[in-house]
Amino acid sequence: MTIIETDIFIIGGGPAASVTAMTAKNSYPDKKITVIKEDKVGLVPCGIPYIFGTTLGDSEKDAMPCGGKTTGIDILIGKIEDVDIENKIATSKAYQISFDKLVFATGSIPFIHQNFKEAMAFENVFTIDKNKDKIDALKSYLEDKKKVVVVGTGFIGVEIATELATVGKEVTLVGASEHILKNSFDETLAREAEEIVTGQGISIIQGEPASGIIEKDGFATGLKLCDDRVIEGEVFILATGYQPHTQLAKKAGLKLARYGGIWVDEYMRTRNKDIFAVGDCSGRRDFVTRDPSKVMLASTSASEARIAGNSLYKIKYMKGFNGTIAIFSTMIGDTAFASAGVTEIQAINEKIEYISGTFSGVNRHPATMPDAQKQSVKLIAMKHSGRIIGGQVSGGKEAGEIINIIGLAIESELTVYSLISLQVATQPLLTAAPTTYPIVKAAEKIVHEID
Amino acid sequence: MTIIETDIFIIGGGPAASVTAMTAKNSYPDKKITVIKEDKVGLVPCGIPYIFGTTLGDSEKDAMPCGGKTTGIDILIGKIEDVDIENKIATSKAYQISFDKLVFATGSIPFIHQNFKEAMAFENVFTIDKNKDKIDALKSYLEDKKKVVVVGTGFIGVEIATELATVGKEVTLVGASEHILKNSFDETLAREAEEIVTGQGISIIQGEPASGIIEKDGFATGLKLCDDRVIEGEVFILATGYQPHTQLAKKAGLKLARYGGIWVDEYMRTRNKDIFAVGDCSGRRDFVTRDPSKVMLASTSASEARIAGNSLYKIKYMKGFNGTIAIFSTMIGDTAFASAGVTEIQAINEKIEYISGTFSGVNRHPATMPDAQKQSVKLIAMKHSGRIIGGQVSGGKEAGEIINIIGLAIESELTVYSLISLQVATQPLLTAAPTTYPIVKAAEKIVHEID
Repeated sequence: MTIIETDIFIIGGGPAASVTAMTAKNSYPDKKITVIKEDKVGLVPCGIPYIFGTTLGDSEKDAMPCGGKTTGIDILIGKIEDVDIENKIATSKAYQISFDKLVFATGSIPFIHQNFKEAMAFENVFTIDKNKDKIDALKSYLEDKKKVVVVGTGFIGVEIATELATVGKEVTLVGASEHILKNSFDETLAREAEEIVTGQGISIIQGEPASGIIEKDGFATGLKLCDDRVIEGEVFILATGYQPHTQLAKKAGLKLARYGGIWVDEYMRTRNKDIFAVGDCSGRRDFVTRDPSKVMLASTSASEARIAGNSLYKIKYMKGFNGTIAIFSTMIGDTAFASAGVTEIQAINEKIEYISGTFSGVNRHPATMPDAQKQSVKLIAMKHSGRIIGGQVSGGKEAGEIINIIGLAIESELTVYSLISLQVATQPLLTAAPTTYPIVKAAEKIVHEID
Repeated sequence: MTIIETDIFIIGGGPAASVTAMTAKNSYPDKKITVIKEDKVGLVPCGIPYIFGTTLGDSEKDAMPCGGKTTGIDILIGKIEDVDIENKIATSKAYQISFDKLVFATGSIPFIHQNFKEAMAFENVFTIDKNKDKIDALKSYLEDKKKVVVVGTGFIGVEIATELATVGKEVTLVGASEHILKNSFDETLAREAEEIVTGQGISIIQGEPASGIIEKDGFATGLKLCDDRVIEGEVFILATGYQPHTQLAKKAGLKLARYGGIWVDEYMRTRNKDIFAVGDCSGRRDFVTRDPSKVMLASTSASEARIAGNSLYKIKYMKGFNGTIAIFSTMIGDTAFASAGVTEIQAINEKIEYISGTFSGVNRHPATMPDAQKQSVKLIAMKHSGRIIGGQVSGGKEAGEIINIIGLAIESELTVYSLISLQVATQPLLTAAPTTYPIVKAAEKIVHEID
């Protein structure tokens, strides 16, 4: 057993771990930083769906750039099996590491509903693990198969389904919710997304939960819904969400939050000020509703990691992580869809008094520009103060950054009154017209309704 | 002479006029609104360069959508010749209009340097007027010509030059500054832009002011520089900026600001609270430096127009126009360039103590994504407080919206300390990686330098 002494010890191989390490290196250049991860080659998590279609087509192309660029960070390969928090020692089969500060960045693992636990033993039932070998196994299994059933209509399910369609698979996408992507979009945009998905030859079956898998000789043959319908297929992919990977933290005696993430404060500290948790393994609250949140995104994980990395030895900047903004984007066909904050459905469920305003136009100006495309922006604001609490965008690829304007407005606690006269850059080849810039127009609608 | 009585009278045909009218209609639905403009068919001003190349190729395609959609606004065609402010009466050849509130949105006209005033009489010397007939005349004149000299390396000059190159013209772009687009970009991005421009076969001659035009038989034959070089050509296009069009306002006795725009307060009111001015004809200050500003952009004009439209009868929202943010984007070849706030050069000239941070990466992740492209973000912040005062972006088309994130940060008076842990949406097909989102990384560099 190799004995290692380090200042900062980070457990994990995903974006949260690497951003914590890079930030800590910048912030505390004199400290020794050690990261341990289980897989030598990690995958870019959000890139995984694109391995299965024509976009990337190969897991090699989705390899996470190795931390080698950031000098001064030691990388170990291994699995920590025990953490002794009191004595500040972590142990794996090969290493015993003593540390001063410890960061859990152990990520998340697929969530499997009770009804499917047994089915996981069948050869043709898969989850989407963030692990190269497992992804390669699924990809190679799919090679000579035609009929694929994807269970789960969150963004991973939708992205996998549409990518599989690009390589000629016959895909059925099955979800319990009324509409696909329901955590991110209200009905109008969800329907727009559904139309594109079905236009790609994918069957969507929704509004009915699945009750289990039908088996024959150790193979799954069909997905059974609660209303007894059976959806047949050769391969079954469960994309039914993820859960915090906290076995190790639990064993170490750390307190967990409501949905099983490690409890942390706004600076990502556990109750022990030397122990931090960041990314999907941490317990999160929603920025708007203040409820515990199940949202897991690499981008917001990176934000937590930056706060932790800066705050390991002292609170340097008075801006903690004030809750997860569910801020997310994807591309379906040629249309980008993006969402931030709460949807109307969530606002209603949370008894938030809100007003929404939507503006639909074109993403170039004049609309005769060669690559002009429909563009739509919806804003959701508090009814009385006008404070922005959500937004949804569809359009060209620029929607991926428009949502970040809305995200900044939410995070900075801005109101529609600031947005109605926002100064923006507009350009014929790049944006909507100055006269009808969609964020401004959507904000205007809300202001007039408040008035 | 037709006698008309109206509540709100707006003089102008550009975006500032139409946005004022639309906003006023929403804000004061019971008021009668009348707009007078000189041309029946207006052009989308920022679209004008694209008439000259393959992008639009025709002024018909750049026609401003007529205000017909917004019902309840009366449009007159004519030219106001006199405004009697005391008695609230404006007169054209055909109309006498009495009003309650008056908005000047008379725009701007090409600025012609003393050295070129006489040359304007030559048949082959043109400016870029925001007028369909004049644009059509230039376009038709260009048809059988080959060698075009474009004077001025601001964005209109650069856009016209690159569009002319797309239809096989032999273009020489001439500017007095060291680099093209120097009001928007520091050297690195300016050089990047220059490389693309010259890669399109355009000659750039810069760093030497032009002293005049050489003439033969009423035709211009060459552009003379101060160092006596002569640049020959068949057509000469002066893109040397614009000046406020304020003849009418001056005649009416309104006070003008330093660069000749109509003096207005933060709610776009002249000293007379019933008379407003918006857009290029108004006198502007810079958001950061507080100096008088020559920046003219349709987008910030629209912002002024929204404030004026809401504030005609009462100040409804406590957010006036707190100075122009020079926020601008364009596309050169396949690369988008965008800028907001002050450049480093401007900061130095204004004796602003600043720190800049630049991050260069890729606009997709992983970098193996099919349409991945180089992307670079520079932020400029106050040295002591870290407040964001400028930014420059190059990359794919998304740069056109990334600059609006930076613009919102400038306008909301945010600091780098807010941006280092900004929550953003990232997606393989749409944005940079969560681990290296460029605004966050650029802000980080500044924070570490301040530390």
